[in-house]
Amino acid sequence: AQASDDNQNQLNQPNSEFNSKAEVPSQGEAVPAFWENLEMGGRVQLDYNQFDGAYNATNEGRTGSNLFPRRVRAYIESEQGDWDYKLLMDFAEEAEVVMARLRYSGFDGGPTIQLGKLREDISLEALSSSKYLVMIERNSLANTVSPYFRWGASAYQYFPSSGLRYSFGVYKNDAFGGSGEDDYEDLDYAGSGRLTWAPWRDPGRVLHLGLWGSYREMSGDELSPAWARGEVRETPVRLVDYAAGGTPVAVDHLTQQGLELAAQWQGTLLQAEYGRRELNTTDRSSPLDGEDFDGYSLTLSHFLTGESREYSAGQGVFKQPAGVRNAWELATRSSRVNASSATQGTDVTTHTLGVSYYYDPSIKFALNLVRSRVSGPGAFALVGDERDGNSLVLRAQYLF
Amino acid sequence: AQASDDNQNQLNQPNSEFNSKAEVPSQGEAVPAFWENLEMGGRVQLDYNQFDGAYNATNEGRTGSNLFPRRVRAYIESEQGDWDYKLLMDFAEEAEVVMARLRYSGFDGGPTIQLGKLREDISLEALSSSKYLVMIERNSLANTVSPYFRWGASAYQYFPSSGLRYSFGVYKNDAFGGSGEDDYEDLDYAGSGRLTWAPWRDPGRVLHLGLWGSYREMSGDELSPAWARGEVRETPVRLVDYAAGGTPVAVDHLTQQGLELAAQWQGTLLQAEYGRRELNTTDRSSPLDGEDFDGYSLTLSHFLTGESREYSAGQGVFKQPAGVRNAWELATRSSRVNASSATQGTDVTTHTLGVSYYYDPSIKFALNLVRSRVSGPGAFALVGDERDGNSLVLRAQYLF
Amino acid sequence: AQASDDNQNQLNQPNSEFNSKAEVPSQGEAVPAFWENLEMGGRVQLDYNQFDGAYNATNEGRTGSNLFPRRVRAYIESEQGDWDYKLLMDFAEEAEVVMARLRYSGFDGGPTIQLGKLREDISLEALSSSKYLVMIERNSLANTVSPYFRWGASAYQYFPSSGLRYSFGVYKNDAFGGSGEDDYEDLDYAGSGRLTWAPWRDPGRVLHLGLWGSYREMSGDELSPAWARGEVRETPVRLVDYAAGGTPVAVDHLTQQGLELAAQWQGTLLQAEYGRRELNTTDRSSPLDGEDFDGYSLTLSHFLTGESREYSAGQGVFKQPAGVRNAWELATRSSRVNASSATQGTDVTTHTLGVSYYYDPSIKFALNLVRSRVSGPGAFALVGDERDGNSLVLRAQYLF
Repeated sequence: AQASDDNQNQLNQPNSEFNSKAEVPSQGEAVPAFWENLEMGGRVQLDYNQFDGAYNATNEGRTGSNLFPRRVRAYIESEQGDWDYKLLMDFAEEAEVVMARLRYSGFDGGPTIQLGKLREDISLEALSSSKYLVMIERNSLANTVSPYFRWGASAYQYFPSSGLRYSFGVYKNDAFGGSGEDDYEDLDYAGSGRLTWAPWRDPGRVLHLGLWGSYREMSGDELSPAWARGEVRETPVRLVDYAAGGTPVAVDHLTQQGLELAAQWQGTLLQAEYGRRELNTTDRSSPLDGEDFDGYSLTLSHFLTGESREYSAGQGVFKQPAGVRNAWELATRSSRVNASSATQGTDVTTHTLGVSYYYDPSIKFALNLVRSRVSGPGAFALVGDERDGNSLVLRAQYLF
Repeated sequence: AQASDDNQNQLNQPNSEFNSKAEVPSQGEAVPAFWENLEMGGRVQLDYNQFDGAYNATNEGRTGSNLFPRRVRAYIESEQGDWDYKLLMDFAEEAEVVMARLRYSGFDGGPTIQLGKLREDISLEALSSSKYLVMIERNSLANTVSPYFRWGASAYQYFPSSGLRYSFGVYKNDAFGGSGEDDYEDLDYAGSGRLTWAPWRDPGRVLHLGLWGSYREMSGDELSPAWARGEVRETPVRLVDYAAGGTPVAVDHLTQQGLELAAQWQGTLLQAEYGRRELNTTDRSSPLDGEDFDGYSLTLSHFLTGESREYSAGQGVFKQPAGVRNAWELATRSSRVNASSATQGTDVTTHTLGVSYYYDPSIKFALNLVRSRVSGPGAFALVGDERDGNSLVLRAQYLF
Repeated sequence: AQASDDNQNQLNQPNSEFNSKAEVPSQGEAVPAFWENLEMGGRVQLDYNQFDGAYNATNEGRTGSNLFPRRVRAYIESEQGDWDYKLLMDFAEEAEVVMARLRYSGFDGGPTIQLGKLREDISLEALSSSKYLVMIERNSLANTVSPYFRWGASAYQYFPSSGLRYSFGVYKNDAFGGSGEDDYEDLDYAGSGRLTWAPWRDPGRVLHLGLWGSYREMSGDELSPAWARGEVRETPVRLVDYAAGGTPVAVDHLTQQGLELAAQWQGTLLQAEYGRRELNTTDRSSPLDGEDFDGYSLTLSHFLTGESREYSAGQGVFKQPAGVRNAWELATRSSRVNASSATQGTDVTTHTLGVSYYYDPSIKFALNLVRSRVSGPGAFALVGDERDGNSLVLRAQYLF
């Protein structure tokens, strides 16, 4: 009776290999179609960092350090006709479903539809895969505004003739401190959409323009204080904090918008983003009701060895250069997120210098030097006199 | 020294692919036998539901809703001669071993033997794979009596000439509130057995008769109050509760028995079950000592498009039709579990209407409308005046 | 936008199978190179035990028992040129990364370099894979001195002409109660190294000599009391406990050293180890400052059916015989770890008799009879008058 689970499938059922055993070719022949519809892979990112000042303000700003697996991921992907499914797990801390995407791409000339745990359509850098980032960590703006992967449904479509692409989705909003439901256990929703246009989209000559917006029900849940860490992981203090020196606030809903610009000329790529967040608090007399916060990020990267990052017009993001091998990339980034209001919160500016070495498309090493400055009415409460923080980060990355 | 783990295997050892690298064919040739003995796959079930009344009684019976991954599973199966092993994981919440079955089928004319985390031989619907159910959720009786997968050992055998099949097993009983051990840390056991007979077992013409029984040591552990949710997941209130309005009770052991009947005629399938549970409490003066609880389930399903569900006589369960494609199935189910005693507990009746669309053997969509009624001495304590509850559930399912 | 994660790879990127779909051969042809660079596998170990006396001293020494999955593992391994990566997960309790090893073996005539979660170079038996052990559990000395897998970097090299091998590494020391960081959140390191020499290394005629050492920063963290269980898992009492009858102590750093000797003659193998640990406590006036603890293990095993365990000179460990099938192995082991000091701690001697049956290289069954004796100043506090403990352990193991 136990075996009723999965293992007694018949011909024409999924996973039928074991029951059509007689048809499985022996060694030296080809394997059956079974494995052709599956793909597996993953990534590992091993990081070492050092940090001081504001990043380690709880320890008098002394030099701290850590060694940790930033991401330990594996995925399995299945394709059956117009449908495909990808399950992406992360094991770096507790086992977590990062993405569980069921996708239908069978509408000729129509949108691609997705269900499951999906990445929301917010921010150029937040949408870029962590394995292809220019810097080791994403900028503070992306980490502030993006909820990354959420359960929901979305649709997108790319028009090759014009370079236009739209995407929008509806999700359960359990991000940013939201529980995902209201006081009566009814769902809190988030809606997000993005529109991008790439008038130039040839290899090494790309112009990308984008805008996105998001509306997020919070139904009185308290907005989480720490919006971003300041572009360094595993440090004691998270620098971008709207509640520093004050108190978190219960929120009815959030609205967010952003603009994206990217321009590539051969080995050089400029990526720029602007974003804002507006709170609508539950208590309409709160000084934070209607408060606006904003930030930007500006990244310039260049391949000394001449390669060009690959632009995926169909997704509106950049990747590492196709077939990259023995290549060096230099980059600089400046970002700022102002999470301060009249009497609380911090305003954080971060500058990063980065160098990456690509051994081949699977193996990459990176070094980032990061310097942040914290100001705003909550700065003293958060970091005392340690207004500056420095960090050095090393990463080894392997993709398979 | 680190590499002593697994990676230095030699020829004739398991996993020898990497060390016999020279023998691995290059692209365009066949892959080695390595992959022929492995199979991988999984399932994802994405659910959306709405519910009110009794299901949301803690919120005044208002309409609640949720969006969640019901199951996110992946398995790997290995076959080596007469042995096979299947590891089935679920990642929907925390990573969990659902099944870890080591099986030997080398006794000619004898039973198949299993070790590991196995499904116990209890209840037709509990034994049916979640990917092949007629309704989105199992009936309350199956959820009450089945502990699903437990660590232990079992045996089963099917006699093709007669259509008879037996199965029995011994397990660690850490189900239903049991810790799996007594006060001296000695194992608590459960023994379960099932006997089925399928006098007719042709495709589209099946008669299935079954009976099962289970004895379960609890050694004074408290029996868990909530026996079943009422056939809807992720609602605030679990309707079938023997302790509602009273108190849970410490139990020395449980006994359970059940009867199964199924009859198929072409596209129409009737599945019926009856089951009972008797408590033997630790305190012999408890009013619940010797108390009997029982329930039933009755499901009628029909394919509008003419397909027949596949009967696996070797396992004594039904699956979806082999090679199903572009098919519609209508179904109705009524079930009742009476978990009430003289002064406490609920008695829950549930009616479900379901429609399923099978895009192909891998992809299915389902809609269920569920209505439950709660009565019994504990009903007021559990759900107040919200004696009825309604729910609508949608599911998208992908198998690979 | 969601799809920016992984699934839009191009030719020459890793994981390009799905985007070069046109090149994937259909059933009956060969599969692409994609699967040739991957390997998957795993192991399952299902244990049943009984224990009494000291092992169950908290329950008056009565007979306890348990049934549990000792290891439920799966791995995925990827090879790309001179690099390979192996991710080994265990799911027996919570999902855990056992090993995540990124390895480079491209230095001709130079060392192999490793990054990630690696096994530290400590103790012959601790370095032996759990799937190839002579007994069901490792000896108490190995479990006392080995931190098993830790995040860090290491290097090793084997010289085939001489039979010499060295290995050393630096790790984050979050073992033995260490948090891995000091009070200022700066890393605590451990350094470990091992040197082995196999003057004889022919199949069935091996002499192995080894020594290892380790220095481990603890920066004031409290050393964990229970050093080893006494070679039986899942019992209520852990017998080897330096704090029994006293108190744990905060430690500045530990030093450890060990010696290994192994000699094989045809089917007979002797493995011997000695090891010691010295504490340097934070409070220099502690009676445990400078305290030395030591232990040994002596294992004799013999294949009744004539096979020889395989010696991997390149790793300095033994495995099961290559291609073993229908083989019987008898073994006896004596070990002692003296974790006692002047006023606290236990001194534990354990004797084991084991018999293993190898059905084939993948399937093994084992029975161990274990007897331990606890003495030392902390014995009464830990086990009262239950100074002896007996256990019977059964294991079924499947490798794939």
